[in-house]
Amino acid sequence: MLERLREELWLLHLELPRNDLVKWTGGNVSGRDPETGYVVIKPSGVRYEALKPSDMVIMDLEGKLIEGALKPSSDTASHLYIYRQRPDVMGIVHTHSPYATAFAAVGKPIPVCLTAMADEFGGPIPVGGFALIGGEAIGKVVVDAIGTSCAVLLKQHGVFTIGASPTAAVKAAVMTEDVARTVWLAMQIGQVEVISADDVESLHHRYTHVYGQ
Amino acid sequence: MLERLREELWLLHLELPRNDLVKWTGGNVSGRDPETGYVVIKPSGVRYEALKPSDMVIMDLEGKLIEGALKPSSDTASHLYIYRQRPDVMGIVHTHSPYATAFAAVGKPIPVCLTAMADEFGGPIPVGGFALIGGEAIGKVVVDAIGTSCAVLLKQHGVFTIGASPTAAVKAAVMTEDVARTVWLAMQIGQVEVISADDVESLHHRYTHVYGQ
Amino acid sequence: MLERLREELWLLHLELPRNDLVKWTGGNVSGRDPETGYVVIKPSGVRYEALKPSDMVIMDLEGKLIEGALKPSSDTASHLYIYRQRPDVMGIVHTHSPYATAFAAVGKPIPVCLTAMADEFGGPIPVGGFALIGGEAIGKVVVDAIGTSCAVLLKQHGVFTIGASPTAAVKAAVMTEDVARTVWLAMQIGQVEVISADDVESLHHRYTHVYGQ
Amino acid sequence: MLERLREELWLLHLELPRNDLVKWTGGNVSGRDPETGYVVIKPSGVRYEALKPSDMVIMDLEGKLIEGALKPSSDTASHLYIYRQRPDVMGIVHTHSPYATAFAAVGKPIPVCLTAMADEFGGPIPVGGFALIGGEAIGKVVVDAIGTSCAVLLKQHGVFTIGASPTAAVKAAVMTEDVARTVWLAMQIGQVEVISADDVESLHHRYTHVYGQ
Repeated sequence: MLERLREELWLLHLELPRNDLVKWTGGNVSGRDPETGYVVIKPSGVRYEALKPSDMVIMDLEGKLIEGALKPSSDTASHLYIYRQRPDVMGIVHTHSPYATAFAAVGKPIPVCLTAMADEFGGPIPVGGFALIGGEAIGKVVVDAIGTSCAVLLKQHGVFTIGASPTAAVKAAVMTEDVARTVWLAMQIGQVEVISADDVESLHHRYTHVYGQ
Repeated sequence: MLERLREELWLLHLELPRNDLVKWTGGNVSGRDPETGYVVIKPSGVRYEALKPSDMVIMDLEGKLIEGALKPSSDTASHLYIYRQRPDVMGIVHTHSPYATAFAAVGKPIPVCLTAMADEFGGPIPVGGFALIGGEAIGKVVVDAIGTSCAVLLKQHGVFTIGASPTAAVKAAVMTEDVARTVWLAMQIGQVEVISADDVESLHHRYTHVYGQ
Repeated sequence: MLERLREELWLLHLELPRNDLVKWTGGNVSGRDPETGYVVIKPSGVRYEALKPSDMVIMDLEGKLIEGALKPSSDTASHLYIYRQRPDVMGIVHTHSPYATAFAAVGKPIPVCLTAMADEFGGPIPVGGFALIGGEAIGKVVVDAIGTSCAVLLKQHGVFTIGASPTAAVKAAVMTEDVARTVWLAMQIGQVEVISADDVESLHHRYTHVYGQ
Repeated sequence: MLERLREELWLLHLELPRNDLVKWTGGNVSGRDPETGYVVIKPSGVRYEALKPSDMVIMDLEGKLIEGALKPSSDTASHLYIYRQRPDVMGIVHTHSPYATAFAAVGKPIPVCLTAMADEFGGPIPVGGFALIGGEAIGKVVVDAIGTSCAVLLKQHGVFTIGASPTAAVKAAVMTEDVARTVWLAMQIGQVEVISADDVESLHHRYTHVYGQ
């Protein structure tokens, strides 16, 4: 079931290593099916190169297995928590992408100091507190800390991004690492400046209403 | 129409991700046709992997759509402004390449401290002021700040390069990031020194008159 | 003989350049056959692109050549020393991966400040003393310094990782560089904090008992 | 003529972009034919992707064109100078590889603080003075500054490596960037220490007499 979403998620998973966001089996992407409300997610501990659309695990929002021969990602409970709290979210990505995770390691948000950040995130990328892996704790931190952004850093851990589609969430994960890298580089050679709230608003509105096809 | 230029621009767009100058749909290349004066440019928000020669949008210098089913890049008005002000410019590239954008983020020019910079740019890479995206404002900053260089940094935004052909502009974008990276690395381990004006002139003259076939 | 292990090691060797852990002929992977106790190892000074399963050298634990037309890795005596001292180790990897080797260059362990480190290593990555290449000296440093970790840094040299299989040792080498990079990046923008022993234990236990299929 | 050497040099040129040592048309490799004494070198300003074995230019040691339809590299006079002064050198490589060029930019040698440096270079990588491109000036700096090393940095410019074969020179160029990167990374997190002369000698002797097949 949900063959198209399985295939879409498989292709999106391949973007993670291609964009240097994950290593070995780390990271995961999930998507919510608008009709059934079911969530499709990566199986736990499977390498990206070996992943097949048929490996994806389908769960309902309460964590009941709907279809799948493999054990789901160990972040599944947190993904489901986010989907339950945020009906607008249809895709979620988790990575340990290095530059963004460096900010997470020291518990610092990424200030909105580039037009690309205003465009994609509409503000800074916030950082949430430390939480253990395996249950809903990480999902709670994400929901509490993410605000109106589509990305949040998890203290000493990594990155979660959300979107109105799985593709949008993967794009947010790619852009999070891209801006984290540029801001990190900038911080070594000078003082970054926050863009004014008016300009951030103007750039974000254009990007979300005019940009693209 | 302009099939050859469409194909050339399509190939040049592929150099951007290959040289790690752009992520997802960011960045764009345009070229001016010497006969018609029309400008061929990337469509807005299309991923590089999905781009086809037939997707390119053809505009006249005043921004009238000549051919194309897709909406042109949101930087189109700025490209056209540059083409109108600078009849010598036949190709333009915009990227957010990370090392160069780090200099842009903190508003610092890249000093001419490497022979490769003297060769390609004939001086430092200047930095222009902050401008909002979507209209001609960025084009004005580019024209005002670029001087005799073929690259300019945009405050808190990214890079524009220009050339006597689209290929020359793409080469300038590749070299901008390459020298930005080396200078950034050098600044972490010591003090960079500017090359004397005479040596810069001598290197640049050789590179633009003797180097190559 | 040991065709399957030869093939496995050949494929695992290809992961080293793919993950940017080695350059040219540097680095090596070995595996111990559970039945015969023989060790299969990379030949000395052969490039990864040229390596074939049939090039692998088979030795017994005392260093007697069992099969192979090529000279074994110059780290062979150290690999064999580790296998003799640690019956639990079935795979060993050696790299000079850059971020981890940067910590090794200055003789600093990598503190356990990321959940990914708690997961994979169950603690910090320790650093052992300087030793010359060619004999068992490096093997002794590895055994003395590695403790309960699966990775150790060698002062002014590089990285050794061990595992219950060659694949596990390669995974440890990939994760060592990944966390070394993130921690290195974090150290440039703030103060990294060690995760509490209880949380490290909890994360490591989950990762080694629940994670994966 | 010299078909085999042309083919060898063409393949070696491809190693330069593959190892991220060059961008666009920068850098070059040459080789000396042991029988004729002729030098085969890259044509000027040709992109690596477009290079063919038949594009290589053959010169004699005094700079007379022996065979080739294209103009030779603008570093040809310097390559020839090195070959005339150093009969032991059979291959030369020039790059602007970023980490090594960062040391060159600030005029600092790379201290011998890693076993991989003792192995490959038998000491530090020295840095020579500034020289203009196009004539023999760079060749003179290389010969004066390189000493017993197989690599030298050129102030505010880049890297030259030499070898007993073109492959050895390319290997030296790859290893120069690899150790430059690791030493650069190490310098950001601590104080690098020079390895004792005895240990450097011992490691270099083993590497050049025992390592490999």
